[in-house]
Amino acid sequence: MISYTMSKTNQIENKQEQVEQKIVNGVNVTKLFGTMDAIRSSPIISKFNFRAKGEWIKGGHNQVTINDFYGAGQTHSRSRAFVYDEDEPPVLLGEDHGANAGEYALAALSSCLTTTLIYHAAAQGVVIDEVESTLSGDIDLQGYLGMSENIRNGYEKIKVTFKVKSNAPKEKIRELVELAQNRSPVFDIISNPTPVEVSLQE
Amino acid sequence: MISYTMSKTNQIENKQEQVEQKIVNGVNVTKLFGTMDAIRSSPIISKFNFRAKGEWIKGGHNQVTINDFYGAGQTHSRSRAFVYDEDEPPVLLGEDHGANAGEYALAALSSCLTTTLIYHAAAQGVVIDEVESTLSGDIDLQGYLGMSENIRNGYEKIKVTFKVKSNAPKEKIRELVELAQNRSPVFDIISNPTPVEVSLQE
Repeated sequence: MISYTMSKTNQIENKQEQVEQKIVNGVNVTKLFGTMDAIRSSPIISKFNFRAKGEWIKGGHNQVTINDFYGAGQTHSRSRAFVYDEDEPPVLLGEDHGANAGEYALAALSSCLTTTLIYHAAAQGVVIDEVESTLSGDIDLQGYLGMSENIRNGYEKIKVTFKVKSNAPKEKIRELVELAQNRSPVFDIISNPTPVEVSLQE
Repeated sequence: MISYTMSKTNQIENKQEQVEQKIVNGVNVTKLFGTMDAIRSSPIISKFNFRAKGEWIKGGHNQVTINDFYGAGQTHSRSRAFVYDEDEPPVLLGEDHGANAGEYALAALSSCLTTTLIYHAAAQGVVIDEVESTLSGDIDLQGYLGMSENIRNGYEKIKVTFKVKSNAPKEKIRELVELAQNRSPVFDIISNPTPVEVSLQE
């Protein structure tokens, strides 16, 4: 477990940082540590509930709207809803109104690993200049089409390659890429089983 | 396994359908069955590789670009790239440039279950009028923050509720909602372990 309980040296560095610069990688580290302190005294505020609403349009095209969520003890509404079109390409009988669901899953994974790396780097005071990720997932559609019980429906394997620019030692960057995997929520839900309860409203 | 090898009665119905209506739910069913026939004689064409490229912008904000993919024996490029902004809300130290990664994962799941339901309904000749889905996922950020080893990083549980309008018997709709779970690629990668291989390009 990586813990951000600070050593004496770090406390001194952090004190200087609070005066000179509280923002690392665009992340307000003072607020981050403040949030962690608040969670320690009232763990209920770390409980979040994220939401999405889907609406089928036609064929492979559907729209997902994301706005409010619950967290830190209250419901939050964004100033505007985020509306995402998802569709299949023509070779999969769609009309290309957006990326497909499997590609959205890769987008979620890319973003989650990146943000986890950036936030944890910030918490450790490691300045990052650039992060690029390249993802790909192999899938055999015989699973989806019910043509073979020996082929799974989802990705057989997902590959992620990171490119990170930073003046920090390479060993530190390697450690952060490792830490991102050990802490990323989407990496967890893809790598490990997550209970999904589906019901039909009648 | 639900198989679309057609019974004698279905063959007759399908023949009529080919003349009167090949499109069900906006899905070209003739092409769908054609694709399945093609896969039967050359299974290599069912192998797809989907891709995403991520770029960190600042703090919790990053951008994911999706365009080309490999499938049906060749690489396909869309007419335009899909660019998705992902960010955290202010309570999670972001600037709300888009939904966050956990919400994108819900969007992927919503879309995948919906499309799977629609395509498989089409294959069975079941006309669907409307599909709505409501998703929510519970997460305790103590996992992400490394504050507790007993709390997982990802969603503890995801709930999905479908509302389906159709003249088909309720039992058939229930069966299709069940089938969507048994065939959806994203439902599979979230419910079951999926190998994710992360490397750092140095």
